[in-house]
Amino acid sequence: MTGQRLRIGIAGLGRMGKRHAINFHTLTHRAMVVAVTSPDQDECKWATENLEGVRVYLDYEEMLAKEDLQAVVIASATAVHAVQTLSAIEKGYHVLCEKPLSQDVAVAHSVVDAYKRSLRIHPKQKVMCGFSRRFDASYREAYKKVEQGDYGRPVVFRSQTADLHDSSGFFVNYAKTSGGIFVDCSIHDIDLMLWFLGENSKIKSLQAVGVIAVHPGLEAIKDRDNAIATVEFYGGRIANLYCSRMMAAGQEDTTEIICQRGSVRVNMEGRKSHVDVHDSLGVRRELPQHSFDRFREAFVTEAREFTSCCLDNTTLPVKLESSVRALAIGQALQRSLVSGEKVIFDELNAKL
Amino acid sequence: MTGQRLRIGIAGLGRMGKRHAINFHTLTHRAMVVAVTSPDQDECKWATENLEGVRVYLDYEEMLAKEDLQAVVIASATAVHAVQTLSAIEKGYHVLCEKPLSQDVAVAHSVVDAYKRSLRIHPKQKVMCGFSRRFDASYREAYKKVEQGDYGRPVVFRSQTADLHDSSGFFVNYAKTSGGIFVDCSIHDIDLMLWFLGENSKIKSLQAVGVIAVHPGLEAIKDRDNAIATVEFYGGRIANLYCSRMMAAGQEDTTEIICQRGSVRVNMEGRKSHVDVHDSLGVRRELPQHSFDRFREAFVTEAREFTSCCLDNTTLPVKLESSVRALAIGQALQRSLVSGEKVIFDELNAKL
Amino acid sequence: MTGQRLRIGIAGLGRMGKRHAINFHTLTHRAMVVAVTSPDQDECKWATENLEGVRVYLDYEEMLAKEDLQAVVIASATAVHAVQTLSAIEKGYHVLCEKPLSQDVAVAHSVVDAYKRSLRIHPKQKVMCGFSRRFDASYREAYKKVEQGDYGRPVVFRSQTADLHDSSGFFVNYAKTSGGIFVDCSIHDIDLMLWFLGENSKIKSLQAVGVIAVHPGLEAIKDRDNAIATVEFYGGRIANLYCSRMMAAGQEDTTEIICQRGSVRVNMEGRKSHVDVHDSLGVRRELPQHSFDRFREAFVTEAREFTSCCLDNTTLPVKLESSVRALAIGQALQRSLVSGEKVIFDELNAKL
Amino acid sequence: MTGQRLRIGIAGLGRMGKRHAINFHTLTHRAMVVAVTSPDQDECKWATENLEGVRVYLDYEEMLAKEDLQAVVIASATAVHAVQTLSAIEKGYHVLCEKPLSQDVAVAHSVVDAYKRSLRIHPKQKVMCGFSRRFDASYREAYKKVEQGDYGRPVVFRSQTADLHDSSGFFVNYAKTSGGIFVDCSIHDIDLMLWFLGENSKIKSLQAVGVIAVHPGLEAIKDRDNAIATVEFYGGRIANLYCSRMMAAGQEDTTEIICQRGSVRVNMEGRKSHVDVHDSLGVRRELPQHSFDRFREAFVTEAREFTSCCLDNTTLPVKLESSVRALAIGQALQRSLVSGEKVIFDELNAKL
Repeated sequence: MTGQRLRIGIAGLGRMGKRHAINFHTLTHRAMVVAVTSPDQDECKWATENLEGVRVYLDYEEMLAKEDLQAVVIASATAVHAVQTLSAIEKGYHVLCEKPLSQDVAVAHSVVDAYKRSLRIHPKQKVMCGFSRRFDASYREAYKKVEQGDYGRPVVFRSQTADLHDSSGFFVNYAKTSGGIFVDCSIHDIDLMLWFLGENSKIKSLQAVGVIAVHPGLEAIKDRDNAIATVEFYGGRIANLYCSRMMAAGQEDTTEIICQRGSVRVNMEGRKSHVDVHDSLGVRRELPQHSFDRFREAFVTEAREFTSCCLDNTTLPVKLESSVRALAIGQALQRSLVSGEKVIFDELNAKL
Repeated sequence: MTGQRLRIGIAGLGRMGKRHAINFHTLTHRAMVVAVTSPDQDECKWATENLEGVRVYLDYEEMLAKEDLQAVVIASATAVHAVQTLSAIEKGYHVLCEKPLSQDVAVAHSVVDAYKRSLRIHPKQKVMCGFSRRFDASYREAYKKVEQGDYGRPVVFRSQTADLHDSSGFFVNYAKTSGGIFVDCSIHDIDLMLWFLGENSKIKSLQAVGVIAVHPGLEAIKDRDNAIATVEFYGGRIANLYCSRMMAAGQEDTTEIICQRGSVRVNMEGRKSHVDVHDSLGVRRELPQHSFDRFREAFVTEAREFTSCCLDNTTLPVKLESSVRALAIGQALQRSLVSGEKVIFDELNAKL
Repeated sequence: MTGQRLRIGIAGLGRMGKRHAINFHTLTHRAMVVAVTSPDQDECKWATENLEGVRVYLDYEEMLAKEDLQAVVIASATAVHAVQTLSAIEKGYHVLCEKPLSQDVAVAHSVVDAYKRSLRIHPKQKVMCGFSRRFDASYREAYKKVEQGDYGRPVVFRSQTADLHDSSGFFVNYAKTSGGIFVDCSIHDIDLMLWFLGENSKIKSLQAVGVIAVHPGLEAIKDRDNAIATVEFYGGRIANLYCSRMMAAGQEDTTEIICQRGSVRVNMEGRKSHVDVHDSLGVRRELPQHSFDRFREAFVTEAREFTSCCLDNTTLPVKLESSVRALAIGQALQRSLVSGEKVIFDELNAKL
Repeated sequence: MTGQRLRIGIAGLGRMGKRHAINFHTLTHRAMVVAVTSPDQDECKWATENLEGVRVYLDYEEMLAKEDLQAVVIASATAVHAVQTLSAIEKGYHVLCEKPLSQDVAVAHSVVDAYKRSLRIHPKQKVMCGFSRRFDASYREAYKKVEQGDYGRPVVFRSQTADLHDSSGFFVNYAKTSGGIFVDCSIHDIDLMLWFLGENSKIKSLQAVGVIAVHPGLEAIKDRDNAIATVEFYGGRIANLYCSRMMAAGQEDTTEIICQRGSVRVNMEGRKSHVDVHDSLGVRRELPQHSFDRFREAFVTEAREFTSCCLDNTTLPVKLESSVRALAIGQALQRSLVSGEKVIFDELNAKL
């Protein structure tokens, strides 16, 4: 372990960007946030006030040109993820990019290709997509238990991402560019599915159904606020995904890995804290209101591990190809959701 | 309320028949088990020893001919459900028949028709299929909470019937005539789905996927030991069913009725009793080992309510048509499971 | 097993009496409620309307004189428990008497003595005090697990009976004759304590503290609405009891048997049903509102086992002496609660 | 908020010291660990290897003499807590001292007095005892809910600290200087009791009972491995404490604040993570193995808040007097545990 701290620039200071900035700045001892950038004046003002000693740029390329960075964390608008990542890859910087790399799978693949080429010149370069659940202690514990094999092989994978209902109108607006509920919500479940069922598992079929129950504004953009998918893999594995934007009590993410002789389940009884209230209504616990509440520590772990990975040249915790594959599956599910069609894949020629 | 006790004959003394016999005989004050019948000598012996004062027949028709009955409970082999039910209907007897009425939907429909015709002659006659979960206190509480409408309309229905793994070989043999996993396991979830989403809901699409994970013997009969289905309804409702024959800890039935502004969930944290054990492995609870353990009281309630319904001429708790529809849906899911095809239904011409 | 049904008379038709009447009349196949008695006209009217074929008496002795009974169930006012029990014992009848036998321990002892004398004449006579928790499936499962010895010997026993707050004024009035909170509420925990720690365990010390938090009317009768006791046994065992009349959500009874290498816990997460509600307040379950809700099945089991015990001349599930000892301990705790004194007992000369 | 970082020296590098060193060094952005000290060569070696850029001293006074510190964190042996704290107070340094300040209440009071005198010279000086639970998010949420008053005033306080059984022999050895189970384990519960029931609540009586169940070595030092206490307060409040060194599954801390019209409970269903395992034994979760696992975040919060408190001159989260009072109560309970006597206090002249 070297005493040097990783010099980081952060792109984007929205909800995710602010979180990354604080996590890297105050909770990641081996990292140093040198500069941040956002095209938004208010966000820049926030940075000036909250990130002491950090330089603030309105332009991403200017930051890259002027600062002596080693790594870039990209949490900007999805539309610029790919171009910003490519630019950083070209400079030989390590990159942690928020998911998705792009809404266009071809573009995402081109980023992967660029990274592969760059590795020939910068063999220690690290480029990773931020899939926070891979850094969650409970998911890791679950993975370890499944991997030990005591319960046989995983057969059925069930997972959900169900978010608190947003009545502010923010969500419907956001949905226009989010790529649809399977790309926006279920992408994490898809990533976990690949992790638990095997990154190389071949998909045999997939299909999805959904409804618009509380956000009529989704009609115009052909999205849904609740959806269910089934995915069938060659080799005898099936998956079931549920995503929702309508939860009344809070954010509910659960995952079940059902193996031949036992199952491992994550967060079946969510709770915000260790507190229960007993009153005239019964016994009550509160739920996390947002995935940030649930995965707060995972985001910090992600920051710390990405930093260590770059400084110590260790293996990336999540492969970039896997993240692109998750995106492709999410988009295929979204298409099935809209068309109503079940898509069947040839084993030898699977494109997902 | 009259002091008269309902004179009942019971057909079939296998696992279900024994349970019904005991429930009606010892826990249903207003019923009197007059006679039982089974073609199996051992079962008849059991009856002689355990059902005091009850006459025992090897032949169903003989029992019907010789005894002065008012009602028949049919828990015999599925293959004779329909013919025994028809015979009892013809005599004007009330009938509680175990599910399914028949493996052949057309035959099941013919029983419904026979009942309708019989009602013209015996307007107080009651014929019902035994769907125990409709009599479970928790499901009823859930139904009441959903019906009150505080949470808006139900939008997503998720339900599972996951049975304890049977390593004795019994199950694979039984599966040969059970009609497949969706007819055998999920029939209860399908029944609940119709109850909660509306008996008249029209199905828009359905499909299923499944695997054989622990019972290779199912290959030959084209069944699966784990399966997942999605069902889409006109009017913006979707359902997700999971069935399994592979659970390691016990029987796990759960149901979630997710409404627009809240959700009601049944048995998300199953337990056999109120006991927890804390030892070096952690904190542990046991699960019911069989649906009998979980629904023991529901079966008693069913016996008592069926009896009261016959004696007091009140409305049947479960409509016979609904049970036949559940069967038809289960069979359609089973076909989709085998064929891999998603079936889409026309709104005006839905046959399910 | 004989076909004869146990001919039972029931004394008292208040809350407990009605429950016993219904349990014996409709859910206890081997029993037959022949007659009931209550000095209350309304209760007699209830019996006439609800207990078909059962004769109703205003006078207990008249019932005993006129009816050909085998057993009596006594659920009348505590003040007459002893005299009614004695009268039935004298006639050689089996007796199930609601707790406590008497508020006066000396009187209770005299009933035990009478029973012992009577046994010389009626060696098959059964006299038992109704401690429902001994018949609860979860407590029995816990007992079995502790008895197996896998966790070593029980060392710490913790138990609570915490009842729903009663705002009707009923409770304060009832408390006047209930013998105090330790005799009324904790008597069940004390009985369980003796069961789990050993009927012959010798008490080394006991003390109690308490408060009046919501029922100021208890001041005048020197009772409390919340109290905590510690009991120390010779041989290295301690117990901790909590009783309350102030719960907001429902009835909360929990018991922990903490052994050297593990612990067994009963009802740590109480719930009325298998239903959870998720709404804007969080995730919520309801609690049983009364011990009847929690122990409904235990009361039925008690009725059935008492009946079988009488008919088949098997060993009584709960010894009468143990019930009297529980009462004596409850009264000693109540005295300590009022006096504030810790009472220490000599090992050789323990009077409790 | 100033950009200056608090220059901290840490005394003691045992289990607690290492934790504090890491928390202040890597997770407390506004603090800078300048130097550490331990009389133990191995611990010093650990510091050299793990705390980059931090100077290491074998002698506490030498560290104080040579370094330009602003604050000292004392996590050394209890025997030197007071003298080290006094030395730091004298120099005007802020102090975070692990509990207890001293095993001798008189000495602890003398530290409080020294701090009060020092405040006249250094009015911004902060001296605090480390009671981690006050910094736990769940306890704070509970406190807030109780304080809001919706449930009326707190009446019954129940709390436990039950540690995992240690079979290594470490515990018995450690117990020799720990001050006894009530000072070592229950001190946190006592601190919480004062917090929830009121720092100024006057004790009316206290008593304790206990056993030696698994650690016979405690006999010689008159300690116990399981103990239960009751504490009675003037003004109608009672408390019940349980402490154990014998848990089989892990560390179990729970707290119940039972108010007049509702209750708030903390950690009634402990779990190490969000993972459940379903296997042939049932459904299982693991517990934290040590209070570090349970209160990991609370320790970090403590470090961060203490740092902010010093830098920003805000009010101390926990008053030093309260910590000394908790110690005095713990010692009084320990004396009662050994003597078997209940101690009753005069309201006007309470010394606790």
